[in-house]
Amino acid sequence: MSTPTPIEFWYDFGSNYSYLAVMRIEALATAHGVPVVWRPFLLGPIFKSFGWDNSPFVLQKEKGEYVWKDMVREGAKYGLPFRRPTTFPRTAVQATRVALLGSQASWGAEFSRRIMLLNFALDQDIGNDALVGAVLKDMGLPHEALMAAARADEVKVRLRDQVAHAHRIGIFGAPTCFVGTEMFWGNDRLDDAVKFAAGR
Amino acid sequence: MSTPTPIEFWYDFGSNYSYLAVMRIEALATAHGVPVVWRPFLLGPIFKSFGWDNSPFVLQKEKGEYVWKDMVREGAKYGLPFRRPTTFPRTAVQATRVALLGSQASWGAEFSRRIMLLNFALDQDIGNDALVGAVLKDMGLPHEALMAAARADEVKVRLRDQVAHAHRIGIFGAPTCFVGTEMFWGNDRLDDAVKFAAGR
Repeated sequence: MSTPTPIEFWYDFGSNYSYLAVMRIEALATAHGVPVVWRPFLLGPIFKSFGWDNSPFVLQKEKGEYVWKDMVREGAKYGLPFRRPTTFPRTAVQATRVALLGSQASWGAEFSRRIMLLNFALDQDIGNDALVGAVLKDMGLPHEALMAAARADEVKVRLRDQVAHAHRIGIFGAPTCFVGTEMFWGNDRLDDAVKFAAGR
Repeated sequence: MSTPTPIEFWYDFGSNYSYLAVMRIEALATAHGVPVVWRPFLLGPIFKSFGWDNSPFVLQKEKGEYVWKDMVREGAKYGLPFRRPTTFPRTAVQATRVALLGSQASWGAEFSRRIMLLNFALDQDIGNDALVGAVLKDMGLPHEALMAAARADEVKVRLRDQVAHAHRIGIFGAPTCFVGTEMFWGNDRLDDAVKFAAGR
């Protein structure tokens, strides 16, 4: 039997299809014995590099209208709660920095799921730092220390590097999975990515 | 048991994800007892209405590079031959007009599959009228009469109306399925669309 390759999982807290994948990946990867490397990042700077000042779901009206109908069906398909956010896309810089810290700890996946649920099931402003701190507190984590650590210059630089890395490897949307150099874009390819990682 | 609703299936001969759906839909719909209404159309005028002078897979380099890797995997997933066309996207106006005639006859589905295979498995120029005529001849159809009929003003107008109809109902890409007013975009939603049609 071959050893599973880890799956690098790139996601943005404002991205609705990232929401579906963040909620699904851990169970799916565990079932296939595939380790997940969580890679929170920001899509905004990537879109800017394409000359876009917003999500393509906002810029392209026809696709944007469709996406929210699709999300209702997709939520039902995966048994996930969904409410269309009244603000879209939400930018959550502090939450992303915290997730970056969490990505090397045991609590990162659960923190990411909670932030996603706040945005896409409860329509809360995940760009609000108080809300991010409350999530950490609710998880029984040293919330004040983590919030302060996430604001350190070192973490700011790490997030910028993470985004630059995403750009360099050709990421143009989220969620995106990498298994070695093989790219899988979208929640629609999450199962394929996990199977590919398991089968190598 | 509820009566299945027909599925309206919109596709463009130049669109690579339409290729996958054109090859798959008949078997899938038959298995679920769902009738298919074939709706060949041209995406080009729709893209122009968005201010795009080409396919988004050409205009957006990063996504374009990814799409061809995805197509290799998708072809393998569905057991369909695939070779990246040396010209993309190919415009096939005469083939689309013929398919429009075929959409009301028994040979339309098979004709559409053959045109798609020429483009995406054999890298042939489906914009070449002689090739379109040869497909009809090979199928044992009255090829000269059909080629002439497809050039009649009435069919040109029907194709323009078909594109205008697509635009009016909010189609922004291909393939797109409609089940009543419910839209399903992409080969990735073909199974969902057929199940939805079967279950109403």
